[in-house]
Amino acid sequence: MKLDLKLTLVSLAVGVLGFATTVASAQDPLLSWNDGPAKQAILEFVKATTTQGGPQFVPAEERIATFDQDGTLWVEHPMYTQVMYCLEKVPALVKAKPELANVAPFNTVLELLHGDRAAMEKLTLPDIEKIAIATLTGMSVETFQAEVKQWLADAKHPRWKKPYTELTYLPMQEVLKYLRANGYKTYIVTGGGQDFVRVYAEQTYGIPPEQVVGTALGTKYGYAKDGKPFLTKEPKLVLNDNDAGKPEGIHLMIGRRPHIAFGNSTGDQQMLEYTKAGDGARLSLLVLHDDAEREYAYGPAQGLPETKVGTFTQPLYEEARSRGWTVVSMKHDWKEIFPRSLGRAIK
Amino acid sequence: MKLDLKLTLVSLAVGVLGFATTVASAQDPLLSWNDGPAKQAILEFVKATTTQGGPQFVPAEERIATFDQDGTLWVEHPMYTQVMYCLEKVPALVKAKPELANVAPFNTVLELLHGDRAAMEKLTLPDIEKIAIATLTGMSVETFQAEVKQWLADAKHPRWKKPYTELTYLPMQEVLKYLRANGYKTYIVTGGGQDFVRVYAEQTYGIPPEQVVGTALGTKYGYAKDGKPFLTKEPKLVLNDNDAGKPEGIHLMIGRRPHIAFGNSTGDQQMLEYTKAGDGARLSLLVLHDDAEREYAYGPAQGLPETKVGTFTQPLYEEARSRGWTVVSMKHDWKEIFPRSLGRAIK
Repeated sequence: MKLDLKLTLVSLAVGVLGFATTVASAQDPLLSWNDGPAKQAILEFVKATTTQGGPQFVPAEERIATFDQDGTLWVEHPMYTQVMYCLEKVPALVKAKPELANVAPFNTVLELLHGDRAAMEKLTLPDIEKIAIATLTGMSVETFQAEVKQWLADAKHPRWKKPYTELTYLPMQEVLKYLRANGYKTYIVTGGGQDFVRVYAEQTYGIPPEQVVGTALGTKYGYAKDGKPFLTKEPKLVLNDNDAGKPEGIHLMIGRRPHIAFGNSTGDQQMLEYTKAGDGARLSLLVLHDDAEREYAYGPAQGLPETKVGTFTQPLYEEARSRGWTVVSMKHDWKEIFPRSLGRAIK
Repeated sequence: MKLDLKLTLVSLAVGVLGFATTVASAQDPLLSWNDGPAKQAILEFVKATTTQGGPQFVPAEERIATFDQDGTLWVEHPMYTQVMYCLEKVPALVKAKPELANVAPFNTVLELLHGDRAAMEKLTLPDIEKIAIATLTGMSVETFQAEVKQWLADAKHPRWKKPYTELTYLPMQEVLKYLRANGYKTYIVTGGGQDFVRVYAEQTYGIPPEQVVGTALGTKYGYAKDGKPFLTKEPKLVLNDNDAGKPEGIHLMIGRRPHIAFGNSTGDQQMLEYTKAGDGARLSLLVLHDDAEREYAYGPAQGLPETKVGTFTQPLYEEARSRGWTVVSMKHDWKEIFPRSLGRAIK
């Protein structure tokens, strides 16, 4: 009888605790964020812009949110995922065109893929562009989509040994869902290839192809032998969606100025300026990679290590401070970085 | 007493008729369409693609519908509305740059606007392009939007003496609403200027700016003297959204193939081919302007008069027949053409 009573009390306590946890989950849409100015800025902004009759209310149709992808929504180090795709497609390219095996930069990539990591240093930006053109164009849109899908299913990140699409940031996934639950249309605005990101954005982020703005090459309409029309990917740059290209791309593809924009590098500077310069409530944020233990640390802002991949300079940091943008510290603002399913120890 | 009874019977009859009309409205989403193969094709297509578990079911996220604008959603004769805009902006242009008053083609436009209708014949396509560049670029995006809005409020169509935005086709407005009510995302895919159409598309068609794909000029990001960033409209063609440019533009801006597409001229040919060539249920339709009395008659398909504005050739008509597209006769398929608010006699 006494034992029973104890059990009952324990059950009750567990029940109450369970209930309390559920209530907390329901109330806090940003569970993996630590309390602090960044989390507070997001919560207050959403509340202000969705409070009907409030001074900062934004009508539902104007609620546009734009997100850089590499380094903002998922891991970009040691190298952008799409560059890894282009490099790893080189063997198939050389198999189809054997004459390329001894031609730079393709021979350099083959050395690199055979384990000569120092070969990476030899690749210049024009080399990367040459490899990109060779691996991203000349096929039909459908063939390209199928190849990217297959690669994403097979490829693994060198550090976590997991598919790239599992290396998205949980706190940012929460922000995407939270904004959508509050009537915001969420867009990716990436320097990466528009066609590449569209292959997985819907499944990975809940963002449909038509809400992915990226660096875009042209396509060419033509007919197959049976008369069936198709589009071929062409080596013609239509939109360079970096730097000033981001606001220009937003105008081209969306036609409205965002009310909230998230980035992490100098390539996002103009998008954040453009967003913040609009009338009414606007929020610009930058993710600072300052967590070498759980992810990576690079800047060189705030004395962090230099990098060519996702550079966050000290002048950008100063501009953020002077223009009232929010800087998100991965180390301090994010309680967790990856979903638990990734199997890493959660702090 | 007899009179009262009669009145009562009349009241009852009116009541019943009124009720019957209401029921018909609720059941028929295409009230201004006559029964026939075109109306039937639209109704059957929507039913087939939205019947869960059916063989032609299309998931909600893939329900993309694209509509040409000029001649498909609104009147394009005697001249495309945006060309009228460009011509009517010339006096303001000449006021700002008086040296243009005696320079072709601007002097020709001034003659034209002063009533010399024959001057229109002198304008070549390169002339129109020169006038377009002069009146559509060189200002900020916001200035352009304000100027278009003002012009639309003032300008009148020469035949109906009504604002252009009132000259949309009621049957097509019904199709837009019907598709949206069935989970379709409706897009305009126009040879007209993307920035121009975006100014009024939301109010006129319920289509937001981000769902308007059109011929697009580039913009250039820069800063005002006070440091505020803004976009300037540039004379740089990014997308020529005509002919093959339509499927190319759809891939660039939407990234999915439409399941239903509506056009009315050779400029829509490739969009309709591309749509119909997709897997599963696809519907391509062409509006034929064969009603000189209620609107205009032009082809030259089916022996209709020739035109340079919205040409519908006989080969296009033959292609429609051979590929299983639906040709909509304005004369026979449309019970009404304009909303009653236009004040015209309704047949």
